Amino acid sequence: MTPTLVESFGIAVRRQRDALGWSQELLAERADLNRSYVGEVERGRVIPSLVTIEKLAQALGLSPHALLQLGEQVGQSRRAHGINLAAIAC
Amino acid sequence: MTPTLVESFGIAVRRQRDALGWSQELLAERADLNRSYVGEVERGRVIPSLVTIEKLAQALGLSPHALLQLGEQVGQSRRAHGINLAAIAC
Repeated sequence: MTPTLVESFGIAVRRQRDALGWSQELLAERADLNRSYVGEVERGRVIPSLVTIEKLAQALGLSPHALLQLGEQVGQSRRAHGINLAAIAC
Repeated sequence: MTPTLVESFGIAVRRQRDALGWSQELLAERADLNRSYVGEVERGRVIPSLVTIEKLAQALGLSPHALLQLGEQVGQSRRAHGINLAAIAC
């Protein structure tokens, strides 16, 4: 399975949230998003909009492009190692 | 009016397209998007999804985060100069 940017972006969001020691609830609250929606984004189950990317990045203390770049890097790393993202994200 | 990232992203897309000398039709074709949808994105009238950002960036020869960064830079520049983005984008 080829990892999509939507999937790798979700993993980057989860990693940044974990690095801060935040729950999905806390991230959702700080990003003004629904908790279950944040979970869906992290699992790559929904396609985030630019506004969602901006809200998540702002809450995580990053610029939108920096958060997206982390997602791209996750995807590149996973592709290089042939790791099935879906198995990790769920 | 405070420029939003959606608006400044649209301006960045248009600038990159103009720099290549492409019509909206050509960009739409290369990005596998609808021509009128590309026009709406450029005018900041619709909120692009991550998949749309990825398609536009790929067509324009940029990584998604690089295109988003250009959008952020447009926004910063416009805010610094107090320019009404809406007046420019239309």
